[in-house]
Amino acid sequence: MNAATMTANSAKIDTREALLDAGISIMLEKGYTNAGISEILQAVGVPKGSFYHYFDSKEDFAIAIIARTGDVYAQRMSRIFGNSSLKPIDRLRKYFSEARADMVTKECRKGCLIGNLSQEMADQSESLRDALRTVLQNGRIVLTACIVEAQKNGEILNDRPAADLAQFIQSAWTGAMLLSKTQKSPESLDVFNRLIFEDVLKSK
Amino acid sequence: MNAATMTANSAKIDTREALLDAGISIMLEKGYTNAGISEILQAVGVPKGSFYHYFDSKEDFAIAIIARTGDVYAQRMSRIFGNSSLKPIDRLRKYFSEARADMVTKECRKGCLIGNLSQEMADQSESLRDALRTVLQNGRIVLTACIVEAQKNGEILNDRPAADLAQFIQSAWTGAMLLSKTQKSPESLDVFNRLIFEDVLKSK
Repeated sequence: MNAATMTANSAKIDTREALLDAGISIMLEKGYTNAGISEILQAVGVPKGSFYHYFDSKEDFAIAIIARTGDVYAQRMSRIFGNSSLKPIDRLRKYFSEARADMVTKECRKGCLIGNLSQEMADQSESLRDALRTVLQNGRIVLTACIVEAQKNGEILNDRPAADLAQFIQSAWTGAMLLSKTQKSPESLDVFNRLIFEDVLKSK
Repeated sequence: MNAATMTANSAKIDTREALLDAGISIMLEKGYTNAGISEILQAVGVPKGSFYHYFDSKEDFAIAIIARTGDVYAQRMSRIFGNSSLKPIDRLRKYFSEARADMVTKECRKGCLIGNLSQEMADQSESLRDALRTVLQNGRIVLTACIVEAQKNGEILNDRPAADLAQFIQSAWTGAMLLSKTQKSPESLDVFNRLIFEDVLKSK
């Protein structure tokens, strides 16, 4: 590959990435429907043709955005849940304590793109729903594995199926994020952290 | 009041109610942004001028929709939580068991208009956020009163502040509804019902 081809290829990747980054930021603020393609193009400074060079449609673009958000979540989860120097229960605590701090930094705005798009689009588009379901499922797989380990170590005393505990935690967290957005307060996130660890997981 | 005035007044009320009913149904399916005023007018069969006779703007219309939805929730809650022939814990069980059945009837579509609009609009409009927050808060007041009564009777063994338990239940339910929409399955609602009653409330 010569230098000119390499530059062209990296410019290609950069434009696609820049479109995705701008799309994530705008959809997080406004949702799918309210996010205008023209606004995204303007943020990146590329013409309309560019968009349709990379994506077949707004729906196709949103699926790429969901996959990319899923990758970011997977990396964040891997950093914490793959850290074997922490006890399994402390990985769970660290994950939700960081997520709470992150929401406070954002002044309880925006929330989670996966939750937002699920609420808005699950009934509108089967392909978006499928992409969203996959991200949620991947998150639960990581949570479940960590809960199994913590149960084995006796750090979590609740002996329900780990998959049920993971599903419940994901529901309760998603709802707590939504309430904190509506209340513009982290109270629901604090209540989540107290009740999940003390009452549901019965962790020590 | 003569007969003609009475008829005119009741037609007035009917048109406003019909607009609200159509708005609720369409916003529940599509959200705020995707719901077109023209679609709502068409459903009711009235001209555009009629809409602006009753409502100043789409936002004003949505606030009336939220208030009306809040009234419907309050009536449903009052029917169950005001039923003193049921034990407090059984009122809670009945409420969430009916809500689960309702979601299954709707094939896990649509969900709850208050949750949906919160997710979509809490960052977009302060007046919608305020209306949504009020409905959520009113729901928590009813839940809290019932939990206090159940704690006094020893039907709920968890002695945390009832307001915290109510906030947690509301978060977990809202999230479970969202997950059931994305998964098109009532599994998250079933997990909610098991874990809330057995592990969180420690009810007998």
